Amino acid sequence: MTTISMHAASVPPFAKMLGNMLQWLDAAKAHAESRKFATDVYLTMRLAPDMLPFTKQIQIASDAAKGCVARLAGQEAPRFDDNEATLDDLIERIRKTRDYVLSVPAEAFAGSEDREITIPRRAGDPLKFDGLNYLRHFAQPNFYFHATTTYALLRHAGVPLGKSDYLGG
Amino acid sequence: MTTISMHAASVPPFAKMLGNMLQWLDAAKAHAESRKFATDVYLTMRLAPDMLPFTKQIQIASDAAKGCVARLAGQEAPRFDDNEATLDDLIERIRKTRDYVLSVPAEAFAGSEDREITIPRRAGDPLKFDGLNYLRHFAQPNFYFHATTTYALLRHAGVPLGKSDYLGG
Repeated sequence: MTTISMHAASVPPFAKMLGNMLQWLDAAKAHAESRKFATDVYLTMRLAPDMLPFTKQIQIASDAAKGCVARLAGQEAPRFDDNEATLDDLIERIRKTRDYVLSVPAEAFAGSEDREITIPRRAGDPLKFDGLNYLRHFAQPNFYFHATTTYALLRHAGVPLGKSDYLGG
Repeated sequence: MTTISMHAASVPPFAKMLGNMLQWLDAAKAHAESRKFATDVYLTMRLAPDMLPFTKQIQIASDAAKGCVARLAGQEAPRFDDNEATLDDLIERIRKTRDYVLSVPAEAFAGSEDREITIPRRAGDPLKFDGLNYLRHFAQPNFYFHATTTYALLRHAGVPLGKSDYLGG
């Protein structure tokens, strides 16, 4: 049975999708400019009244990626203050997240598939996983949820994006 | 460097999320019943006029999962006719997809990270990947895109779901 590393299964796809998100936000800026509206209007958009707004979708995508990489590598993730107030702030947040995940050396992931991961929850007992289950059943689907919801909000706002922009070049 | 198998990185997360989707569709049935509308109305919902409807989101999620597993394992994926006309048909489609991905033995994935994968496109040259890049940069983000969009459409329709339903128990 040939195999892949936990680093290969996590860091490159997080980094690539974060890069794709930067492209979508550039397209969102251009769209706002051509339609003459302020980019701030994106920040409070929601797909449903009881779903989180655009800003929060990006903050959580960032947290999902950096938290996963840090937990697997046995590091502390950089703390960001969730105080982004403009589209440019969110772009910077994504850039810093990508820089961090790419900065963690592959060697730090050794043994991470068996590492015990504990995720605190607002209510109820914390979630416990081994590293492999944490990556494949929690961190990755959660990250892609918030990336896709960000994309869906931009599509809803009329930003000219398609599936190839979601997947990236 | 310890490692994980390509099977472990692909089949269990596809199977789990497909199972989560079955739970969402059960909730959608119950919601339609309590609000007294036909479940058929879900099938044509779209997040944007130029995004694909609900039925297609589920068909493509199915294709992404079974196509990925088949390509990595060097098998032919089962062909489904994309003729689902009811919510129950879509539930059956998801069930068959899950059964298929779980049926492929882990041994069939040996060497799949280096296997050459070619994805035909309607326009332009086919996409070419090795198996690892195909899984992490194409099949997984694509699958989660369509799962998340299915979820978003149900949330938009008022089905009482939350993030814990998306991630599954």
